[in-house]
Amino acid sequence: MTNNSIFLAQQLGEQLQQLGWSVTCAESCTGGGIGYAITSTSGSSSWFKSGYITYSNEAKQSMLGVSEQTLAKFGAVSQAVVEQMALGATNAAKANVAVSVSGIAGPDGGSAEKPVGTVWFGFAINGDVSAVCQCFSGDRHEVRSKAIEYALNQLSSLLKS
Amino acid sequence: MTNNSIFLAQQLGEQLQQLGWSVTCAESCTGGGIGYAITSTSGSSSWFKSGYITYSNEAKQSMLGVSEQTLAKFGAVSQAVVEQMALGATNAAKANVAVSVSGIAGPDGGSAEKPVGTVWFGFAINGDVSAVCQCFSGDRHEVRSKAIEYALNQLSSLLKS
Repeated sequence: MTNNSIFLAQQLGEQLQQLGWSVTCAESCTGGGIGYAITSTSGSSSWFKSGYITYSNEAKQSMLGVSEQTLAKFGAVSQAVVEQMALGATNAAKANVAVSVSGIAGPDGGSAEKPVGTVWFGFAINGDVSAVCQCFSGDRHEVRSKAIEYALNQLSSLLKS
Repeated sequence: MTNNSIFLAQQLGEQLQQLGWSVTCAESCTGGGIGYAITSTSGSSSWFKSGYITYSNEAKQSMLGVSEQTLAKFGAVSQAVVEQMALGATNAAKANVAVSVSGIAGPDGGSAEKPVGTVWFGFAINGDVSAVCQCFSGDRHEVRSKAIEYALNQLSSLLKS
C-alpha cells in the first residue's frame, strides 16, 4: 500500500465521519486493495462495514446483482458494469456511498479497444451513480496502485461537490 | 503490500493451480489485504473468484453466516468466529479452500485478555476447518502486514501436508 493511498483513505474517512455516512467497495482488478486502504485508518469501522471482492463475472452477479446480459453485452470492464457494481454494493452493504472498480491490470487481457491499464470506476452516492474510465501506465502492480489512489481521491472529490 | 506477501501469494497460487483448487478469503482486520495479495499474481482469476471483507459483526453474519450467538459469546476475535467465517466463505464462494482473519490491529481495541496484535486465523480445506491464534508486535500497519503474510504462508503449509 502506498503512503498516498493511506493519506487519501484518511482524508476520505474524515469526510465520511463528518457527513455521518458509510462507504463500501466493490472490487475486481484491485482485488481488495481499496478495502485494505480504507481500513488502514484507525477507527474506520465507524464508516466501513463490508466490502466485496468480485473477481469473476459470477461473483459480480451473485454478490452485487450485476446483470448477466450487461456483462455479455459490454464486458466486465465497462461503464454499465461498474455502475451496477456500485449500486449493488450500496444495496448489499446498506451504505451511503460505494466505489467500484473493474479493469485490465495486465500483463495479459488487453485488446486494441481496451488496452492493459484500462480501468472503469463507478461511484454511487445515495442512489446517484456515475462512472469514469482511466488508462494507467505501468506494470500490474503500478496499474493497481494507481487505480486504488484514483478511486479514493475521486470519491473524496465527489463528496466535496 | 510487502514483497514477501507477493512471493507467498505466488507460491500459493502455484499450489492451487497444481491441485486444480480455488481459494477465497474472509477478512476482518486485514480489510481486503489478503485478496489484494492473492490477486497480485497474474492469472489469479484461475484460482480466485471472490472474497469477503466483513469488517462489522453484521457483515460476518449476513455475508458468511456467522452465528449471532457465537459472536456474542466469544467475540469477533475468536477461534469459533474465524472457523465459521472460513467455512461460510467456502460455501458462499463455492471454493475448495478459505482463509479467514479476525484480529485487533490497534492502536485501540485491545484488552488484557486480547491485546493489540492478537489475530485469529481460520482455514477451511474441503470442509475441514482449523484455526490458530498469533500475537504480532508493531503498529497497525505492521500487525496487518504480518497477518497477511502469516495467512498466506500458513495456508500454503496446510496445502503441502
